[in-house]
Amino acid sequence: MSLHVWAPNARQVEAEIAGTRSALQPAKSGWWQSETTVNHGTDYAFLLDGEGPFPDPRSPWQPEGVHGPSRHVDHERFVWNDCGWQAPPLASAVIEEIHIGTFTPAGTFDGAIARLDHLVNLGITHLELMPVAEFPGDRGWGYDGVDLYAPHHAYGGPEGLKRLVNACHRKGLAVLLDVVYNHLGPDGNYLARFGPYFTGAYSTPWGEAVNLDQANSDQVRDFLIGNALMWLRDYHIDGLRLDAVHAIVDTSAMPFLEQLRRAVQALEAQLGRHLVLIAENDLNDPRLIRPPEAGGFGLNAMWNEDFHHALHALLTGERRGYYQDFGALADVSTALTSALVYDGRYSQYRQQRHGRPATGLPGRRFVGFLQNHDQIGNRPQGERSAQLLSEGLLHIGAALVMTAPFVPLLFQGEEWAASTPFQYFTDHQEPLLAEKVRKGRRNDFGAASTGAESVPDPQDPDTFKRCRLNWQEQEHQPHTRLLAWHKALARLRRTIPALTDDCLDNIRVDFDETARWLLLQRSTVTIVCNLAGTEQRIHHRHLQLQQLVLASQTGVALENENILLPAESVAILM
Amino acid sequence: MSLHVWAPNARQVEAEIAGTRSALQPAKSGWWQSETTVNHGTDYAFLLDGEGPFPDPRSPWQPEGVHGPSRHVDHERFVWNDCGWQAPPLASAVIEEIHIGTFTPAGTFDGAIARLDHLVNLGITHLELMPVAEFPGDRGWGYDGVDLYAPHHAYGGPEGLKRLVNACHRKGLAVLLDVVYNHLGPDGNYLARFGPYFTGAYSTPWGEAVNLDQANSDQVRDFLIGNALMWLRDYHIDGLRLDAVHAIVDTSAMPFLEQLRRAVQALEAQLGRHLVLIAENDLNDPRLIRPPEAGGFGLNAMWNEDFHHALHALLTGERRGYYQDFGALADVSTALTSALVYDGRYSQYRQQRHGRPATGLPGRRFVGFLQNHDQIGNRPQGERSAQLLSEGLLHIGAALVMTAPFVPLLFQGEEWAASTPFQYFTDHQEPLLAEKVRKGRRNDFGAASTGAESVPDPQDPDTFKRCRLNWQEQEHQPHTRLLAWHKALARLRRTIPALTDDCLDNIRVDFDETARWLLLQRSTVTIVCNLAGTEQRIHHRHLQLQQLVLASQTGVALENENILLPAESVAILM
Repeated sequence: MSLHVWAPNARQVEAEIAGTRSALQPAKSGWWQSETTVNHGTDYAFLLDGEGPFPDPRSPWQPEGVHGPSRHVDHERFVWNDCGWQAPPLASAVIEEIHIGTFTPAGTFDGAIARLDHLVNLGITHLELMPVAEFPGDRGWGYDGVDLYAPHHAYGGPEGLKRLVNACHRKGLAVLLDVVYNHLGPDGNYLARFGPYFTGAYSTPWGEAVNLDQANSDQVRDFLIGNALMWLRDYHIDGLRLDAVHAIVDTSAMPFLEQLRRAVQALEAQLGRHLVLIAENDLNDPRLIRPPEAGGFGLNAMWNEDFHHALHALLTGERRGYYQDFGALADVSTALTSALVYDGRYSQYRQQRHGRPATGLPGRRFVGFLQNHDQIGNRPQGERSAQLLSEGLLHIGAALVMTAPFVPLLFQGEEWAASTPFQYFTDHQEPLLAEKVRKGRRNDFGAASTGAESVPDPQDPDTFKRCRLNWQEQEHQPHTRLLAWHKALARLRRTIPALTDDCLDNIRVDFDETARWLLLQRSTVTIVCNLAGTEQRIHHRHLQLQQLVLASQTGVALENENILLPAESVAILM
Repeated sequence: MSLHVWAPNARQVEAEIAGTRSALQPAKSGWWQSETTVNHGTDYAFLLDGEGPFPDPRSPWQPEGVHGPSRHVDHERFVWNDCGWQAPPLASAVIEEIHIGTFTPAGTFDGAIARLDHLVNLGITHLELMPVAEFPGDRGWGYDGVDLYAPHHAYGGPEGLKRLVNACHRKGLAVLLDVVYNHLGPDGNYLARFGPYFTGAYSTPWGEAVNLDQANSDQVRDFLIGNALMWLRDYHIDGLRLDAVHAIVDTSAMPFLEQLRRAVQALEAQLGRHLVLIAENDLNDPRLIRPPEAGGFGLNAMWNEDFHHALHALLTGERRGYYQDFGALADVSTALTSALVYDGRYSQYRQQRHGRPATGLPGRRFVGFLQNHDQIGNRPQGERSAQLLSEGLLHIGAALVMTAPFVPLLFQGEEWAASTPFQYFTDHQEPLLAEKVRKGRRNDFGAASTGAESVPDPQDPDTFKRCRLNWQEQEHQPHTRLLAWHKALARLRRTIPALTDDCLDNIRVDFDETARWLLLQRSTVTIVCNLAGTEQRIHHRHLQLQQLVLASQTGVALENENILLPAESVAILM
């Protein structure tokens, strides 16, 4: 391949290949092209006006990390065995979100391959990888990636990712990938040297905003859209989870997300393979998932934060931060029947009206979860629900996620109530940045109840190691029980069509805030939860003629229109 | 009325009425309320935590300017004589944009009343007032207003504006008002003392962005929407021209502009009177004017900058700045048939793709003009088209604006080719700000052809005086001819239905870039322009059986499918 790079402000661009420099020639629209070619596996880098060498902004591989040279990859060389592969539809999906570095002791793509049978047996249909684009150091969540086209060297690089996707497809698992287009990490971020990738017109919580609507933004959009298409085309990824799209500020007449969706649709038609786009969004804005005819961006789904917050606040009793807006059974009920709890309602936490109704949208347009990497890892100690809830309430939470009208998502190990936390960890090489992250983390939580001294140091390798799943614990109680419970729920979801009928109009919820019970009616299926600390007899006309299908505990008794539920238990009837 | 003010961060709020201070009591949502009442004409101001006094953010009148006390106005006291008034529909409108300070020698609302007959005789249906909200000093364009609820003291205050609107309605003229919701001026801007009216999350070219999507933004939105409703309700204004809505950055699920449109629609239903919202927009984003069902904001119209730029660049030959993207007859043709020239096309000036197609939208959703306050006043010398074009080309420009499918807009005096410029003028009282504006103006244009020394000083009262219309010149040539031409064109537009049939699909344009002629076909009506410096015979099958209705010059000869047009002339046939 002949090298090319976009550097609209450079007066001179050189490539350094195996110690030899050669000049690139200016081409149109700020691009530069080299006449020498590089082969698969060749290392190269660019010099701009004599400065550098810098890695290629579109580097496919950074074997030595974010500051090292780029290595050329010929995507055609990989031998795929997934001919004719089609991902299962989102409507019937069960997603497991995993972090490659901590999913297995090896912390690699290949390590994950060995654990796919576990996911298949559990009933998972889609594996969702936290970001894999090259980020600084060997350990990290991945949201500070800087070489967006390069699968992380410590995870196994391009070949490793391809082997994982190939293996997933062979086992019938689809693969979703988390991509971060709202900002880039601070360390190893050479993009600004190459061109106006960033703009000061808007700010994000994580640094300079990506330039999507100012001068030269066409090329920046092409950079990001090209990245999305690369994962879907060259790595056979089945869909993308778009990180924090609320931080993508773009006032143009053709919003970036709409342009991205159009490009992915075109690729979908070309490949003949279903591709999905799922957005994380803090604005409760259903425009993301409304169809283009209604002025929407036409994305396939968005994460349902309100459902999480309502469920978490109800089960844990926590009311700090954004949980202050939730906590009632009524909120869980609203989430189940309307998807969004804040649909224009005033939010005390935000001190403004928040969101917009999702009227008419089906449940498959939302991803529902009891926890995810953020909800766990943004706690000072990275505690999972399993560390915060009784076993009974954990069973109820799982049942509601798996019988809700939304696409369920589990976070790695959630299925067996993993005892390992998911804490914030980094491996910054720049001492100043490392210290900043360390201090920032302490300041974020220093005032909280835990005390600053107990906030784990993100830079400490032990923080990372502590988060590695312990696969052995599945063999012991209560983990074995929880795993069986999740398997049973996934099987129900797979086998009872009423549970994947995602028309929200068909859903009925009754509840009693005082007695603390909730009854979710999904066509022929009834889910009854007793959240109280004592057993109670719940009377409801829907219970007539129903039979017990699954219960989280023994001692459930059904008699005509009454059900006796032990303390903190849930029963599923049909 | 009892005084009330929003000051969510204050610990103490006092009112100063006639030298006496009294404490306000905290009410809900950050509001404070006083138990003492003020009457019509009473001066008052607020103190926050002992600092001040500051004018009321919602002050209805600032008789002593932006730094003085507020004066209470009882809107019920004015006696209106416009019972049953309905504005003419936009589809058949001809707008004249005026600046109260320079429209007449008096420079007041009352002064303008004396000139309404001129506008009626000309064929104007809508008077559009440049911003009247209290801005610093006695002279200014009005885009740095700070007391958004107070008609400017130098123009005649609240009573003056009501007298003008009342007089307009009596004469059958609707009144539109330019309102600035994207920023506030720097001088006399006390809003930030009262609450989080601004945000640092986004920047505008004119200072801090208005807080429309961060914490406490509900109250800021209510402040602006309350302002819009006040003009429409208490001043009987028929519609608003929303300044530079591209600078209103708002990522919320319920965009401010949509909320504003909904509120105005509700008021429309309540009043039983047509109200319109027209946006100025630099993004060529038809979402503004698409219906809500299609995800649009449902505004009534937007200014068509592309039509202006295409026409101006064609007629003047100018190619500086944004005119570099225009200049061909093809651009004028595209504007006439598709409204927007840049509908996703790459713009050399902007160095990015720009805009989005306006497919399916009718012409009445766009306002078309040969010039406006900005296009004139943002030139160093504030030259009008009349100073830039030959009389022949001026006739052609007027004919194309008045026969285009868009709502025509003239800038005060354009109808008689006024010789007075419209330069940038200010009356800043703060010496540092005055110097900054003076220097800024020189720097903006210093590098341009004119030479810095010749840029008029915005602070010099003579700059303002120079811009006052000279009404006497109408009696002399060539002004009399131009005025008659505009009257004739307005009469045609009023009497020939084909000219207000605004379906863009019905419009045909032919042109010859080399020969420099353009033929615009609007159903039964044909407009033929010869832009060349010599007479030419134009052959076109549309000309068959057509008869001359109006010509800008003598010497037009029509023979079968040929028309002979003198140099720089235009003929209208039917």
